[in-house]
Amino acid sequence: MRVRIDLSYDGTNYLGWQRQPDSDSTIQSQLEAAFSKVFGQAITVTGSGRTDRGVHAHHQVAHFDIPKPLTTGNWVRSLQSGLPDDITIQNAYAAPEDFHARYSVEKKTYIYRIWNAQRPNALESRYSWWLYNPFSVEQLNSYANLILGEHDFKSFQTAGTPVSSTLRTIFEAQWTRSGDVLEFRVTGNGFLKQMVRNLVGTMGQLAQREAPTKELKSILGALDRQKALLTAPPHGLFLEKVFYPQELDNQCRQL
Amino acid sequence: MRVRIDLSYDGTNYLGWQRQPDSDSTIQSQLEAAFSKVFGQAITVTGSGRTDRGVHAHHQVAHFDIPKPLTTGNWVRSLQSGLPDDITIQNAYAAPEDFHARYSVEKKTYIYRIWNAQRPNALESRYSWWLYNPFSVEQLNSYANLILGEHDFKSFQTAGTPVSSTLRTIFEAQWTRSGDVLEFRVTGNGFLKQMVRNLVGTMGQLAQREAPTKELKSILGALDRQKALLTAPPHGLFLEKVFYPQELDNQCRQL
Repeated sequence: MRVRIDLSYDGTNYLGWQRQPDSDSTIQSQLEAAFSKVFGQAITVTGSGRTDRGVHAHHQVAHFDIPKPLTTGNWVRSLQSGLPDDITIQNAYAAPEDFHARYSVEKKTYIYRIWNAQRPNALESRYSWWLYNPFSVEQLNSYANLILGEHDFKSFQTAGTPVSSTLRTIFEAQWTRSGDVLEFRVTGNGFLKQMVRNLVGTMGQLAQREAPTKELKSILGALDRQKALLTAPPHGLFLEKVFYPQELDNQCRQL
Repeated sequence: MRVRIDLSYDGTNYLGWQRQPDSDSTIQSQLEAAFSKVFGQAITVTGSGRTDRGVHAHHQVAHFDIPKPLTTGNWVRSLQSGLPDDITIQNAYAAPEDFHARYSVEKKTYIYRIWNAQRPNALESRYSWWLYNPFSVEQLNSYANLILGEHDFKSFQTAGTPVSSTLRTIFEAQWTRSGDVLEFRVTGNGFLKQMVRNLVGTMGQLAQREAPTKELKSILGALDRQKALLTAPPHGLFLEKVFYPQELDNQCRQL
């Protein structure tokens, strides 16, 4: 039986999603250790994707398999029981056999937060990037508009795992300001390694000198990582929501 | 010369405000170590009051003395330079001689946050108390109204440092709900040890069984700590603002 879990986490104290040898400070290893105890056997957890060290998730999705169907019970509570407070299970489902946390993903939304004020803010220090120069939201959105639609985002991919294609489709890319917080919300059918952080760092750096949009266009067109500018730090990034096709969601039965 | 600083901190990683032997994990010792380096001599910092281990501050005030008047310069940045990201200096002032961070306090506002939802929330775990049973804000406010004005709060004082009087005046005490977050905002001319946490724990416990207000009245009237109920955990508590008399504020000159 395949189990789907929806969870959130505060990434501050973790080395990221992915299991690492010689460390249990990753989200995946925390989940695997806790679930292996619950089921009395080794459990392997597959996530919708990796998040880097320090990145947070309001909504992440993962799956794992168990040999026998689960009896009714408060499974969300049981799965939570061995986990620390900064990793929380929001929901657990009996998923259809062909549900795969990673391969079934339809789209994902990320949010990147910037604390844009003259002084840093202790209570924002783990959840935003502090930049004190004032930004124009209009300027930022003039760049964001350029990445809408299908593009080759090779310039915004940090070297690492090879991927078969660097084409991605962006459905939504919008900056908004609420007081001293600038927020970038982006939804796409997939994201390359550190793509959101590379986009935010580059847009931020361009906006600081009010560069014309053609500069971002030229970076995007270069298909060359060397052309992109800053990589925004991980702690401002939140995986906001992972979407699956409606028909798969409908086949998930709440446990 | 007396220097006043206004600061904020995320209390998660600290043992509280007060300096402790054999640990530098307190807010006071972090400030003293950083400022002693800046001025090349031992600096003693006096806060408006202590905060417990895990308690946060949006606005805390402290003072310290230096032998010579400060030359002009970016003192906020200098004072910040040796501090970790989770302690931030918001403002620094040349204060009048009779300004005292603790004795000059006129009133203080605290906020206590409860995450009131069926499931815990990883990203709220360091900043709120998770209680899953639904609460009635009206019920909570029926208790809060009772503590307005001057009362002897001895029942809500945790044993510790002796104080000359347990009379305190509460100017504002109000519960509000915003989505899954319940917030208690309380302003008073002073607070006894763990008084806000004892009030929140007691009101919370009474509200869960919709106890009549006379029960809180009877606990308050008993002047006996044994009669109060739960002590809410520290990580939901925020020192929100420290107020000084207007004429003292006016004499503080921004550095």
